[in-house]
Amino acid sequence: MKWSSGGVTAARGFVASGISAGIKPSKRPDLALILSRSPAAAAAVFTTNRIKAAPVIISQRRLRRGQARAVLINSGCANCLTGEAGLRDALRLSKAIAKGVGLANHDILLASTGLIGTRLPVARIARAMPRLVDSLSRQQHEEAAWAILTTDRRPKETAVRVSVGGRTFHVGGMAKGAGMIAPSMATMLAVITTDVAAPPALLSRLLRQASAGTFNRISVDGDMSTNDTVFLLANGRSGVQLRAGTPSTRVFASALQAVAGRLSRMIVADGEGASRLMEVEVCGARTAGEAFACARSVATSPLVKTMLAGGDANMGRIAAAVGASPARFDPTRLDVRIQDQRVVANGRVVPLSAAVVRMLLRRPVVAVRIDLHAGRAEDRMTTCDLTTDYVRINAGYAT
Amino acid sequence: MKWSSGGVTAARGFVASGISAGIKPSKRPDLALILSRSPAAAAAVFTTNRIKAAPVIISQRRLRRGQARAVLINSGCANCLTGEAGLRDALRLSKAIAKGVGLANHDILLASTGLIGTRLPVARIARAMPRLVDSLSRQQHEEAAWAILTTDRRPKETAVRVSVGGRTFHVGGMAKGAGMIAPSMATMLAVITTDVAAPPALLSRLLRQASAGTFNRISVDGDMSTNDTVFLLANGRSGVQLRAGTPSTRVFASALQAVAGRLSRMIVADGEGASRLMEVEVCGARTAGEAFACARSVATSPLVKTMLAGGDANMGRIAAAVGASPARFDPTRLDVRIQDQRVVANGRVVPLSAAVVRMLLRRPVVAVRIDLHAGRAEDRMTTCDLTTDYVRINAGYAT
Repeated sequence: MKWSSGGVTAARGFVASGISAGIKPSKRPDLALILSRSPAAAAAVFTTNRIKAAPVIISQRRLRRGQARAVLINSGCANCLTGEAGLRDALRLSKAIAKGVGLANHDILLASTGLIGTRLPVARIARAMPRLVDSLSRQQHEEAAWAILTTDRRPKETAVRVSVGGRTFHVGGMAKGAGMIAPSMATMLAVITTDVAAPPALLSRLLRQASAGTFNRISVDGDMSTNDTVFLLANGRSGVQLRAGTPSTRVFASALQAVAGRLSRMIVADGEGASRLMEVEVCGARTAGEAFACARSVATSPLVKTMLAGGDANMGRIAAAVGASPARFDPTRLDVRIQDQRVVANGRVVPLSAAVVRMLLRRPVVAVRIDLHAGRAEDRMTTCDLTTDYVRINAGYAT
Repeated sequence: MKWSSGGVTAARGFVASGISAGIKPSKRPDLALILSRSPAAAAAVFTTNRIKAAPVIISQRRLRRGQARAVLINSGCANCLTGEAGLRDALRLSKAIAKGVGLANHDILLASTGLIGTRLPVARIARAMPRLVDSLSRQQHEEAAWAILTTDRRPKETAVRVSVGGRTFHVGGMAKGAGMIAPSMATMLAVITTDVAAPPALLSRLLRQASAGTFNRISVDGDMSTNDTVFLLANGRSGVQLRAGTPSTRVFASALQAVAGRLSRMIVADGEGASRLMEVEVCGARTAGEAFACARSVATSPLVKTMLAGGDANMGRIAAAVGASPARFDPTRLDVRIQDQRVVANGRVVPLSAAVVRMLLRRPVVAVRIDLHAGRAEDRMTTCDLTTDYVRINAGYAT
């Protein structure tokens, strides 16, 4: 398995484009299209928020077929809480793009991201569509990656090339994140493409497994979006055919996991206002659920996240977040390490100089390992610090 | 029922004092004592955090008797995650103060607040105790209220005087809060005193009921402390005797609720970095649990709280937080009002000018009413905005 360039068009038979359609007042790119030149199996994971944006509702319905050819994504407007009108808007755009690329309506998947509660400027987007279709090419993956961003500072793309049984396949993708990132399904927008062939049910299962340890294990602010979606399209152009339980499938699963993992780390690293990352690892938990809940409690604690921002020697906050979680453990056996330094030993804060703790906390990636000494289950989450910039970005997002 | 002055010594037979014992490097007041001149029934609610500070462990044990005479509180050090040594420190202080005021060890209740993981300067505190005891008086309630603060900007005191059946009783108290305020038991430090007489079991039940709708319905940052405690002492000096189910008990319950409610609002209003409050009211939920979970999801959402800080027209964030909660409802029936203005109607964001929304959001107290139209249960929570000051305060707390 080799990291490669090409992002969402690294896999054979995929083209992409990204343009400014005038949805964002800033005139920055805001409309992207990803297309498979041949039929493709498709799967997705969606937000579990009870309030779902119009494109989520439509894409969920269309994915029952397990097939799709194109993904149309806009930024600048979430098309959520827009009622029947919002559904009609999304269907009109879907119809226009289907016509533009010569596909059936049901071949089109949709995603939107941006402000909740405003309507899409449908006429303007429809007018921009010929330009979007004309720009489609294998080279335009980066333009597509730019066009799906909101408060992100950088586009997020990655891809791998894998050889198996004399053949070569690819998995590549792009994502956007930045805020409203919480560990409960999808948590952002991502499109992953591959040139393997696979039955939709298998594809769906593999995507779910890959998301569990990646997109569902990151947190920026603990909020859960109404639009979160990860799409996976597989067009079979590599000639590699996946079936459950075969070595090829295991190799593909690792490749998918690698791509999802890298994209999800890029999302946290570019978290709103983030200046550094924290990898929270919990071991010795009684159950997998408790390990996750404990990691999540630490990774979403505002007090832990502000401590990380300030590099402030306040180790008790980590322990307090552990104790506030539903995980059962004996407080007098709790151990916490940062990098390789014990900071809580047998339930007591280790007296360290503020300078030492600051040094531990002021790395770009801070590794926290929590041992509950209560069982064998473990889990991990990646989070970022909570800075004044996060507040500034989100106190004036709409205005 | 009339609001009165006097705070924690408004009830007859209680005295208090507050001094600087040198626990805080700033030399600000950091040691408080509240004493009943005669025997008192006592009850408390404590943090549900699995990690409990030494004073919490000791006070929980002592309260099994249902009796206590004095509460010793220090700020500047939480005496938590300090192991056996921390327990010994707390017991030494308890012994010293018992000797100073001529009581038994088991008459003393303890509470600490401040940095987690550091040891109490026991010798220094013991040296200051004669001064603390000498200052005890009915007038010193405000000094006591100052001495329990950490990042609070203002002391928090209130009291009521109530006439029932020709007699007059009092309920008064003081609290500290500011950060690490979450709705799951106690959530801060508070001492409430009263001159009614009541069996400890009844007192405990009434305190639990009063806390449920007050101290357990406020949120500053969603974090849960290791030291949270609310004490209630009743010395019977008014001659009013409570028994379960009597009118006097109902009147007392309202008075206790009023005092707890006012103290808890003072805590949120003085939340770290807070510039305004939000009252989140959820109605039409299927169950009481879902109503609470929904109110809590909105009240702890960083995106809702930063929107409140900025007065930013981004109503979708409230709906997204509702949808992320476990509450079941039909998204096409969701209604949200701010003050009396509908901002989400039948699951659609109402198009309002940014100026109108800013006007709604920039009041000192913003009332949000969420109707799920799914049942009859309701609940409410009070929260504050998330500002850059919160981050500044918490990024450099220890240093």
